[in-house]
Amino acid sequence: MVGIRFGIFYEHQLPRPWEDGAERRLYRDALEQVEIADRVGFDYVWEVEHHFLEEYSHSSAPEVFLAAASQRTRNIRLGHGIVQVPPPVNHPARVVERVATLDLVSDGRVDLGTGEASSMAELGGFGVPRGEKRAMWEDAMEALARMFVEEPFAGWDSKYLRMPPRNVIPKSLQKPHPPFWVACSRRETIHFAGRKGIGALSFSFTEPEDAGVWVEEYYRLLASEECVPAGFAVNPNVAVVLPMMCHEDEATAIERGIDGAHFFGFALAHYYGTSPHEPGRTSVWDDFVSHREAQGFSREVISADDAPLGVRVTRRGTGSLRGAIGTPAQVAELVRRYEAVGVDQIIFVLQAGPNKHEHICESLELFGEQVIPRFAEGREEKEREKAERLAPAVEAALARRDPPRRQAPYRIDEAAELAHARRTVPTGDRTLGDLLTAGRQALRAKGRRAFARFVSARSDDELERGFGPAAQRAFFAAMVRAFDPETAMGFKGEIEFRLRRAGVETPWTIEITGDRARVRPGAAEDAIIGIRGGVADFLRLVAGEAQPPALVLEGRLEIDGDLAIAPRIGEMFGGPSPY
Amino acid sequence: MVGIRFGIFYEHQLPRPWEDGAERRLYRDALEQVEIADRVGFDYVWEVEHHFLEEYSHSSAPEVFLAAASQRTRNIRLGHGIVQVPPPVNHPARVVERVATLDLVSDGRVDLGTGEASSMAELGGFGVPRGEKRAMWEDAMEALARMFVEEPFAGWDSKYLRMPPRNVIPKSLQKPHPPFWVACSRRETIHFAGRKGIGALSFSFTEPEDAGVWVEEYYRLLASEECVPAGFAVNPNVAVVLPMMCHEDEATAIERGIDGAHFFGFALAHYYGTSPHEPGRTSVWDDFVSHREAQGFSREVISADDAPLGVRVTRRGTGSLRGAIGTPAQVAELVRRYEAVGVDQIIFVLQAGPNKHEHICESLELFGEQVIPRFAEGREEKEREKAERLAPAVEAALARRDPPRRQAPYRIDEAAELAHARRTVPTGDRTLGDLLTAGRQALRAKGRRAFARFVSARSDDELERGFGPAAQRAFFAAMVRAFDPETAMGFKGEIEFRLRRAGVETPWTIEITGDRARVRPGAAEDAIIGIRGGVADFLRLVAGEAQPPALVLEGRLEIDGDLAIAPRIGEMFGGPSPY
Repeated sequence: MVGIRFGIFYEHQLPRPWEDGAERRLYRDALEQVEIADRVGFDYVWEVEHHFLEEYSHSSAPEVFLAAASQRTRNIRLGHGIVQVPPPVNHPARVVERVATLDLVSDGRVDLGTGEASSMAELGGFGVPRGEKRAMWEDAMEALARMFVEEPFAGWDSKYLRMPPRNVIPKSLQKPHPPFWVACSRRETIHFAGRKGIGALSFSFTEPEDAGVWVEEYYRLLASEECVPAGFAVNPNVAVVLPMMCHEDEATAIERGIDGAHFFGFALAHYYGTSPHEPGRTSVWDDFVSHREAQGFSREVISADDAPLGVRVTRRGTGSLRGAIGTPAQVAELVRRYEAVGVDQIIFVLQAGPNKHEHICESLELFGEQVIPRFAEGREEKEREKAERLAPAVEAALARRDPPRRQAPYRIDEAAELAHARRTVPTGDRTLGDLLTAGRQALRAKGRRAFARFVSARSDDELERGFGPAAQRAFFAAMVRAFDPETAMGFKGEIEFRLRRAGVETPWTIEITGDRARVRPGAAEDAIIGIRGGVADFLRLVAGEAQPPALVLEGRLEIDGDLAIAPRIGEMFGGPSPY
Repeated sequence: MVGIRFGIFYEHQLPRPWEDGAERRLYRDALEQVEIADRVGFDYVWEVEHHFLEEYSHSSAPEVFLAAASQRTRNIRLGHGIVQVPPPVNHPARVVERVATLDLVSDGRVDLGTGEASSMAELGGFGVPRGEKRAMWEDAMEALARMFVEEPFAGWDSKYLRMPPRNVIPKSLQKPHPPFWVACSRRETIHFAGRKGIGALSFSFTEPEDAGVWVEEYYRLLASEECVPAGFAVNPNVAVVLPMMCHEDEATAIERGIDGAHFFGFALAHYYGTSPHEPGRTSVWDDFVSHREAQGFSREVISADDAPLGVRVTRRGTGSLRGAIGTPAQVAELVRRYEAVGVDQIIFVLQAGPNKHEHICESLELFGEQVIPRFAEGREEKEREKAERLAPAVEAALARRDPPRRQAPYRIDEAAELAHARRTVPTGDRTLGDLLTAGRQALRAKGRRAFARFVSARSDDELERGFGPAAQRAFFAAMVRAFDPETAMGFKGEIEFRLRRAGVETPWTIEITGDRARVRPGAAEDAIIGIRGGVADFLRLVAGEAQPPALVLEGRLEIDGDLAIAPRIGEMFGGPSPY
């Protein structure tokens, strides 16, 4: 068992309607909360970077908020994460400059969380191709890690970033650089974090038992020969995120915290699913009020006997998402379970939805007084032991990493550099293959919109009538043609669909073998996941019109097997990703 | 006469050699200085954004420093400027997000200074074409002004920025947005600021009498029909920058401040001129120590009778640059002269070169105690009068401006947006013509380097022998082929070259007619500029080996006519630009 650390997490949520001065108060309150968290013994304040996600996250410039927080706190570490590292959003040099400057003004308290964003609003807004965002992450991370340590940075020349040699200044106070983390929302990205030797920030809500499996796999990979660090230091840490509200009286804790937790989950699904969003118009809060029940975010399901703490799916729905809402004793017990499986940090979300500033402050004080002390004793000793235990593996991993480069004397030459930059910026200089790919994507997008319009304009009856065996065959054939191995990330196995039409079920099986997908009629031999439902619901699902949780809840869709795969199916076959 | 305001200015300078912890101390000291400035009555703290300018400016993330400063100050305004607005450096949405967030955490104290940068290190580093940076500024400013006020921002579709409709959040506390400024280093940019209805931040060192002319022209243009505001509010202000150090004893003030002022001027010339720079290697400080005398930055020229306060060129050199270094009475007298000609703000540079923290703090205290009170009385009354006087012109100007747009209902569509972004980002989706242009540019860069090597390897005699009439003809023919109408920016007319070889002068004339250039042997009919010199010097000049000022100074090159055109000739014909 290792020691466990505590963080608080900010999206800066602001449900509509927005009153005058609401954003100013939101930020002012958050700064006060961070001051309290620092004083009562929290170890980290994390702030995400999100763009255009109205209501869900008004946290578009965490570098500013964290810098402000740095001057009102003494010990708390500043989790600058995740920063969106694809170059169309943030030039890697600018990321390094900001992180280093924040490290200087905070006396070395920065942790750098990284990610690529995956909402439609952000990827579409900045023009980041979904299929390339992970490649952009890998490329930008390698470049920015070097900017921290190389003097001068010896330049970069990739599909996503071209930069001549420059000394990126200032340098961070922490050497070689602040600890690196990566946002993880699925098991594969936890593995990815282990292989990269960086902290795993798990933003999907995970039960302790599942988290335990993740922790085990993460540390196994980190200690294996597969680990080649993304940084010039290894940051072995797994953190999970949970909603929280703490009060001596359980019912009061629930009353104060459950709407925030539920809104958080609902708004996440809104932006990361396929819900339509009209900038400046859609009210996510109104949608939440109208549809929370249907999506399982019912206030009524939350009571002590029916929905225990944690994030397990309740028998009444998928969205209970109670998290760490309860009495100090209950919360401590939940923390104990995460600690027992080796989670290194729990990051609590208190500022969510309509949760009130004064309740958040009270919760922080109470947690600091009654929960933190139970976990603080002996923690540093355990952490030292962990570091010693991992030291040989860390050393071996760093030895596998390419070292900082030494730049030969180089004289700045603007004209030559400009000519090179013009020749090679990300989307320039396309090969015929690139153009064909772009064309296919555009066609696919067009086809998807046409399909969505087609489905949306028809009744269930019409859909059922029109989607007989021949149409099904053509549909699945198109699906496998649209298969994108990159988003499947190594997934292999069978997915079984059982489509019900006029009382008769027709089975179809898609088999994925690394980089190819094939379809055949009939049942699977050994399905990793099975999806069963009516033809009309299935089509609405694929068209992005209906949401899986709602359909499951209403008993119209059944999913068996590895639930973590289900939401990714659309993405693998050319649809939008839910994350 | 209007009231005058006082600011302090940060580049975060750090001459080599760099000791461990020097950058941390630099930032910590600066935060302390800003606290003092706020307490003693300074009105603004300005911080620039620069990248890779080792020693001259370690201020690459002003958003972080100013956010930190916001929590340690109460009244002082946070001059976030200049921010580099070309999209390859900072995505306009990210600029707006940062400025708005800083405005929220500082309770509405932000001023936004904008610019495009013009050092080779920055333009080459980020791939910003010198000939397009002003166009990028205009385009990005219009987009970002709208992001502050439109809900949602109705999207953008230009050569430099493509962005679909999104609500850029949070919104700034100040409405419609924080005051806008633009960096000005020449008279034309002061005019530009007047026409755009935004504050002019004059970073060139200007004597009060010259500043008076600028002020007059600025306000004349701002009140004229030529003024079409860049923002949705007008910010009528002219600010000048001066080095400063204040002490009761004049000699002590000079002793404490002159090296900093001189290093500032020297390093500025280093990065903004054509001095070679090797990232991570060049020591600007060592160059300064070796060459300050030769460039006129001699400590000896500075004494009370020889070099008065201000920035007038002394009779002994070009670089005296004493600025506001002197006793409180002397500094107040200098301030009075700027106030008399209508300058609205003086921004003092104290943190420069090797200037010491404790001396800076003392100066700030002394200035606050003895100088500020002389100018504070009646200032607000004067400012009110000025606002009333300008009100009709401001109103008329704003009426000329396109209003915020109202976005029709728009649904986020990632696939369509991506397809559009790919199709239209500046260098993406190239036509055959684009590819040919890129190829020509690459060839040109290659040819230029080969040419530079050729010239550099030969003596003057060899060059003279090899560059007879036939070679000259071929050379000028290549020059006009390389003509780039975009960098000529509308220049029309004749340029005459008289090349001396073996005592004989051969005239050549290049005629530029909008988008084309032609060459012919013989003298010009009506040359806008004439350049006369030996063949070898001419070739070294074109190869970038010799600098025009040096050659003119040594009497080896004569330039007649519009001098403002001379430094741009290289750029127009495919060479590096001097700005």
